[in-house]
Parts: sequence; structure tokens; C-alpha cells
Amino acid sequence: MKILDGKLAAQAIKGELKITVAQWVIEGKKVPHLAAILVGNNGASETYVAAKVKACEETGFKSTLIRMEEDISEFKLLEKIEQLNNDPDIDGILVQLPLPKHISSKKVINTIDPDKDVDGFHPVSVGKMVEGMPTFLPATPYGIMLLLEHYKINTKGKHAIVLGRSNIVGRPISILLSGNANPGNCTVTICHSHTQNLKDICLQGDIIIAAIGIPEYVKPDMVKDGAVVIDVGITRVEDASRKSGFKLKGDVEYDTVAPKCSWITPVPGGVGPMTIAALLKNTFNSCIQKN
Amino acid sequence: MKILDGKLAAQAIKGELKITVAQWVIEGKKVPHLAAILVGNNGASETYVAAKVKACEETGFKSTLIRMEEDISEFKLLEKIEQLNNDPDIDGILVQLPLPKHISSKKVINTIDPDKDVDGFHPVSVGKMVEGMPTFLPATPYGIMLLLEHYKINTKGKHAIVLGRSNIVGRPISILLSGNANPGNCTVTICHSHTQNLKDICLQGDIIIAAIGIPEYVKPDMVKDGAVVIDVGITRVEDASRKSGFKLKGDVEYDTVAPKCSWITPVPGGVGPMTIAALLKNTFNSCIQKN
Repeated sequence: MKILDGKLAAQAIKGELKITVAQWVIEGKKVPHLAAILVGNNGASETYVAAKVKACEETGFKSTLIRMEEDISEFKLLEKIEQLNNDPDIDGILVQLPLPKHISSKKVINTIDPDKDVDGFHPVSVGKMVEGMPTFLPATPYGIMLLLEHYKINTKGKHAIVLGRSNIVGRPISILLSGNANPGNCTVTICHSHTQNLKDICLQGDIIIAAIGIPEYVKPDMVKDGAVVIDVGITRVEDASRKSGFKLKGDVEYDTVAPKCSWITPVPGGVGPMTIAALLKNTFNSCIQKN
Repeated sequence: MKILDGKLAAQAIKGELKITVAQWVIEGKKVPHLAAILVGNNGASETYVAAKVKACEETGFKSTLIRMEEDISEFKLLEKIEQLNNDPDIDGILVQLPLPKHISSKKVINTIDPDKDVDGFHPVSVGKMVEGMPTFLPATPYGIMLLLEHYKINTKGKHAIVLGRSNIVGRPISILLSGNANPGNCTVTICHSHTQNLKDICLQGDIIIAAIGIPEYVKPDMVKDGAVVIDVGITRVEDASRKSGFKLKGDVEYDTVAPKCSWITPVPGGVGPMTIAALLKNTFNSCIQKN
């Protein structure tokens, strides 16, 4: 069993990007600039946004963190996005999800200029992805593709089982893995809460992508020997023995499943860091296209 | 074994639509108007476009057929589309595919105003479909969904095997069938030219959607007893005994497969007429939104 080490792979990608960006700036071009909006102060969201801002710093990007109160009106948030859309210095806009209930995430996502949609959630980005056109791929699935590429995992003709059909992970990764590209060319089965015989289906998986958000849902009797397991879940589970009061759990029961796998991602340190690397790649691509 | 009769179902849908449109027009509203562009004179394309124009007439729609020579420049075609985009009387624009090789289908599709994209191929339409937003669904997959709905086929929790990953059929129907709707909520496996053990996978299918364009590819040993089989293929195969010189074959070996099925679509008379019914529904929806 080998580890798909997202931390290492992300470091490698960010290292390369740092050199490319430095060269780009030496040529007199504009420093890539990511704007992140954080509404309220959800603990996990704080952590994610802080990690994104830090990654920008490390890689030579400019970043702007915009904080808004939990009770900000939807109108004010949309107004702020419009302002960022019209600011020529901003290459990428990301609004950290989830948003408070009184704000429509769909409306927010649809307001972001598709040319700055570095999280890849705008319908225009999604449509282009489906049709295989150049676009911003959604950051988490793109990160998974970069991870498979980094470790040269052979995906062609393999059967990938995707657990979860969310617009953020399950749906787009099922589209990317079944696309005519490398990584890609998998036979893909997409599963969800209505799936019957889930265990039998999982056992067919040469590759399993777990993205359902239920801690330790995937057990060893659901995984065939030699499978590649990508764990997208990251849930805070109470743990009084820790200073923080919680620990992070993936969707896979790691200790029992790992021995059966050819490759597996840890949680944390798997898909998470790759999502950030993907976000930076999208932001730099946006910067190149505009300058 | 029962027949999913697309001709009958399409007639029912068009009949309803005809009444609705008549009522709409009596209220003083605008007659829905579809513009179809046909480049060159491919025999199959001629037939399809003629059927669409005829369906418009039968249902009380206005239609305009624009013929262009095989050697028309891409620029001229795009110019014509722009003109239709700007014509307030036109509710839907369809460009019959395939186009001659010197014209980029992608460029043509991307030029159609998404608000008139009644074939549902524009990236904006596709992105909205993936995200479950109201949009024009691509006509053939939408037609399949209408057919399943018409015959009240239970899809929830069923395992659907989709053969083919084209942007026109395989990809979108896999998205729709796995969506959280009715019809929908299937576990979906999408297969293509790189799929291994295709027979074993097909045998798991409660529903099989064959959309690969290879005549009679699906044989009885690939289909489990009681499956629902939807045949999207329609290929002209030489047949000297016929006046036309050809007959139409689906992707399924009908005579041997049909006895194993609970439901099956014939070819012709299955998915084809449903595609046209879906196109009319999209065109009327476009008309409603604009008037």
C-alpha cells in the first residue's frame, strides 16, 4: 500500500508554479491576484480560507481576504462580487462555502464573472467542462486529477466508483474521470443515497472516490484488493483528548481499508492540499488569459 | 415485453402542446417560432429537418427552414445565426448536425443565443442542466426522459447503463438519470470504447441506454431478463430490397433482445419522435419566457 500524499504533490505543483510566476513577474507582467470572501466565522471555513491565503503568499500571488458579517444581506454580498468582477487587478474570485441560509449560493456563484470563476462552479465553467472545452475546472475534482497525474496512476479502462453526486465533487469528478483524456477514460459508476447494492458496486471499483461526507462510511468489505481509494471527506469529529476538541475524519475507515489498497489518500493531507494547488493553477491561468 | 412507443408518446405530448399553444395564441400572444438551419443536403439530415418542420406545422408553431450550400463559409453561417439571435420573432434556433468539415460545430453552437438554444447544446445550457437549474435540456436525452415519464417507468434506485459518452446523448442522459428528480435517481454507469468487461457491466443494467452508433451492437447475452432497453442508435444500412436502398438499424439487435426486456423502444418509432417532441417543448418554453 502506497500513500497518495497530497501535501507532497501540492508542494511540488506549488514549487513549479512559484518559479513560473516569478519568471512571469520578472518579465514585467502582473502579479496574479486572488480575492477570497469569507462570510461569518465558521471554524472550518476560517481554516480553509487561511490555508488558501497562505498558499498564495508562498507561491508569489497577491491575495485579498474580504470578511463579511454572518448577517450581511445577499444584496451587499452580490454588490461586493460585482465590484471584484470589475476590478482589473483581480484574477480570481472565490466565495467560501457554505454560506448563511439567508443567502442563495446559486445566486452568488452565478454572479461571479465566469472569467474569474477559479472555483469552477459557474454554469458556464461547468458546461465547458462537460463539453471538454478549456475552462476553470472545479478545484477539488481538478485537484484529484492532478494527484492522479502526479503519481502516474493508470486510469484508462479502469472502473471508477464515485460515491456522491454533489455539484462540488461527485458530479464533476465523474465527468472528468469518464472523459477522453489522461487521467480519464474510466468507466464510471455514480452512486448516491438511492443506490441499491452499494457494497457490490463498490467491490467492482478499481478506483473509489468517496465524497459523501459521512465519516468512515467506506469499510474494508466494500473495497477490492489493490483498489485506488481517494477520500474526499473531511468531517470534524469531537475528540476531547485534543486541544482543538476535534479530529478530522474522512469518508473511509482508513486503518482497516488502507491495507487492502494499492494507493490511498490520507485525511488530512490528501485531497485538501490538492484543492488549494488547483485553485492557484486556475488563478494563474486566469491571470495569463487577461494579461 | 412491452413497447415504449415513441410515436404514440410524442403524439400525446404534441397533442397537449397543440391545445396549450392554441390557448396561448387566442390570448393574443405570439405564435412560437422555430428557425432551423440545414447546411448541404445530407439525406438523413434532410429527413430529420423535414420531420421537425412538419411537427411545427402540426402543433401550431411557425417554422422557418434556412438552407445553405455545402460550401458556405463558417463566417456566413455565424452571421446568419447572429441575425436570428437578434430577431425578436424567433424563439428557438437549431442547426442540424453534422456540419461540413470546414465549419466548427463548437463555434456554431457557442454562437447561438443561450436563450434560444432549444437543442440544449450551448455550454450555458449544459452547465445549468448539470447544476439542476431550469434550462433547455438537450433534445434527445430530454425526449428519453419524457418517454420514461409517459410510460411511468420506475427509475428510482435502478441501475442504468449508458453506452456512449457523446455530448449529444450519452453524457447528458447519464447526468439526467442520476439526478435527484423523477425520472432520475438511478445509479448510473457510463461506458465507452475503453470500457472493459462491457458484457458483465451491461448485465447489471435494470435500464440500458444504447447510444454508440454501431448497428445491432447490443446482443441478448448482454441484457438481463426484465431490463428496460432504450435504443438511441439510428444508422442507415444498405438494403437493396427496399426502394430507398437502405433500412434503419438501432444499436440493439431488436428481434433477439426484445423478448428478454420488460420494455424496449423500436427503431424507428422510439427515441426519434421523442427528440422532436422535446424540441417543440423547449421552443414553446422559450416563447413563454420571452413573451
